[in-house]
Amino acid sequence: MTTIDIPDDSLFGLGNLPYGVFSTPGSRPRVGVRVADFVVDLAATLGDEVFARPTLNAFMAQGRRRWDEVRRRVGELVSGEVPDTAVHPVGEVTMHLPIEVGDYVDFYASEHHASNLGRLFRPGSPPLMPNWKHLPVGYHGRAGTVVVSGTDIVRPCGQRKAADDPAPAFGPSRRLDIEAELGFIVGTGSPLGTRVRCDEFPERVFGAVLVNDWSARDIQSWEYVPLGPFLGKSFATSISPWVVPIAALEAARVDTPPKDPEPLPYLRETEPWGFDIEMAVEWNGRLVSRPPYREIYWSPAQMLAHMTVNGASTRTGDLYASGTVSGPRQDQRGAFIELTWGGAEPVDINGEKRTFLEDGDEVVITATAPGSDGRRIGFGEVRGRILPAVDDDGGR
Amino acid sequence: MTTIDIPDDSLFGLGNLPYGVFSTPGSRPRVGVRVADFVVDLAATLGDEVFARPTLNAFMAQGRRRWDEVRRRVGELVSGEVPDTAVHPVGEVTMHLPIEVGDYVDFYASEHHASNLGRLFRPGSPPLMPNWKHLPVGYHGRAGTVVVSGTDIVRPCGQRKAADDPAPAFGPSRRLDIEAELGFIVGTGSPLGTRVRCDEFPERVFGAVLVNDWSARDIQSWEYVPLGPFLGKSFATSISPWVVPIAALEAARVDTPPKDPEPLPYLRETEPWGFDIEMAVEWNGRLVSRPPYREIYWSPAQMLAHMTVNGASTRTGDLYASGTVSGPRQDQRGAFIELTWGGAEPVDINGEKRTFLEDGDEVVITATAPGSDGRRIGFGEVRGRILPAVDDDGGR
Repeated sequence: MTTIDIPDDSLFGLGNLPYGVFSTPGSRPRVGVRVADFVVDLAATLGDEVFARPTLNAFMAQGRRRWDEVRRRVGELVSGEVPDTAVHPVGEVTMHLPIEVGDYVDFYASEHHASNLGRLFRPGSPPLMPNWKHLPVGYHGRAGTVVVSGTDIVRPCGQRKAADDPAPAFGPSRRLDIEAELGFIVGTGSPLGTRVRCDEFPERVFGAVLVNDWSARDIQSWEYVPLGPFLGKSFATSISPWVVPIAALEAARVDTPPKDPEPLPYLRETEPWGFDIEMAVEWNGRLVSRPPYREIYWSPAQMLAHMTVNGASTRTGDLYASGTVSGPRQDQRGAFIELTWGGAEPVDINGEKRTFLEDGDEVVITATAPGSDGRRIGFGEVRGRILPAVDDDGGR
Repeated sequence: MTTIDIPDDSLFGLGNLPYGVFSTPGSRPRVGVRVADFVVDLAATLGDEVFARPTLNAFMAQGRRRWDEVRRRVGELVSGEVPDTAVHPVGEVTMHLPIEVGDYVDFYASEHHASNLGRLFRPGSPPLMPNWKHLPVGYHGRAGTVVVSGTDIVRPCGQRKAADDPAPAFGPSRRLDIEAELGFIVGTGSPLGTRVRCDEFPERVFGAVLVNDWSARDIQSWEYVPLGPFLGKSFATSISPWVVPIAALEAARVDTPPKDPEPLPYLRETEPWGFDIEMAVEWNGRLVSRPPYREIYWSPAQMLAHMTVNGASTRTGDLYASGTVSGPRQDQRGAFIELTWGGAEPVDINGEKRTFLEDGDEVVITATAPGSDGRRIGFGEVRGRILPAVDDDGGR
């Protein structure tokens, strides 16, 4: 038996206990919980087949009462002695995509980000669209290209056209960017023709992950009218492997920024569902930004209420993300197009000037939040490295 | 044993043989083929477990060679004697959603539709955006709310705001509309980081269905900038239960309209993948439109090539649709917003004036195409009836 030693400064203490899907050499993917620098095999310790599955979906579908019960049992389990064979150093396991993604929706809920992009994409027009303060603007992304942290990102090709080019050209994106976001995972779905209230958020939503919504700005800016982003985003969206339970974020809850104008009744919350989560973005190892999630205008409860107010159903495994998290300061911007102001203000990365991502660049997004026992909890990381575009004959 | 009598004018003769998922009272959903007015149970006749599944996905994933082989065997089977227990009158079975939908993408590939909507949504601006003739504009829709024909559609609620309203109001959509479309279903997926060429279309795409992309125009017009349609569409998308194999559409193949300007190389086809499919839209039993699919500017092969040119993967069960099919004439428009010119020109439906859909209205979309044996083949229908909005306290 093993007793897991949890250092005082671990971001994966008893107040966190995030779930993920891992495998060890020669074994099948199954559910584990991270404690300090170890992964505890829940299939092996809890004797429940639901944890032997290759995604969290079956467990998530069991609902809030069950999540709470398992969280309590896991807390007791890892505080005592755990069978040696069920404990794996985190460096010795492979992490997998933790969920089977249903629908993926990406919001646009940071006022700083939306304003910055408005200024960059539509110079001369008001930076925020008239609807922005009335509803959480969002759109559907590609669920099939959500990948787990560590997956290499092949530079996408596509059509791009600058304003003064006579016609579009085809080729690898030259303005490849990141979007540092927080993502929420639906645990228990809701039927078609019904809506989910803001206050149902903790019953419906299982947990949160970090999201890097890779974005090819040149492809996006040419394609996105009038139906929104498509190929500029759909080549890959990376998520962190550890799903932090909403219950672990209790101490991080804060009010979202004041709403002006007051939103329509279906978007009013009786409890605050903002989170004081501090994100960090590293570009080739250099910390370039600390996006403050607490600045996000719409809460994930409001996003869920909005997403379903038309009667749209939700499913276990649906993923919805905040949109880029940006704060008011330059060093709080969660996308490089903002950080470098459309490429006009390069940043220094280890002595090299960078505007957008170059081949071989690596981006790591991390985040921490206050935990319930006075310590901080961590989300782990979402990491991705850019591989060169696959050159095949100019798109023939 | 039964010999199936196929009338000469049947739209479901030996040149069609579409697949669907059906059940009879007390039995589980399984795969069948439609012949004349009968459904032949493939699980019972072909002795293959893949047809005992509740969706076509496992069969579709087996690939083109297998599709061709099964089509040949089914043709032989239904030309001879079939066990009585494997033949069901189509009126005595329940049809189910035939596929587990992966991602759902909706294109916007009718020049007449895009121009009409441009005039209606953006009066005073050029009707087509500058990108429209360079690429098939599209976006991701909500896969989880794709429903089978016959599913009632609850009128969606949401935010709506006319241009001269000071603020948005909440309530049931007042401009509920249809979009008559053709949808294509991916049979064999393609890995992340690779692209699918136009010429791979018949290897990758299993078949076609009719699509009604229900649209709440008032919700859509307020929400859609800058990220595209979201709640105005996501409440429901209906598809027909019978998946017509691409092989059945061989005689319907035509060139798509001439391209000017010539598209980039990755969008050039060496074979034509337009289809001469005649659609029909009935509103409460009255034929109001005959949208001609042959007018669609971009072929489904070009749509698939575009959708993957950035390296996005595809999966078995991915559904992508043409966008509203509209022809040049008023009586060829596939959406009521076009047919009634934004509600300004009501149509007469059985003595009642209609602009948009009222509660209790029913819409049926059908389509036929030339078949390989000189007869026509049919898609069956996609049918939906509008139920009143669920009134719950003004959205509280």
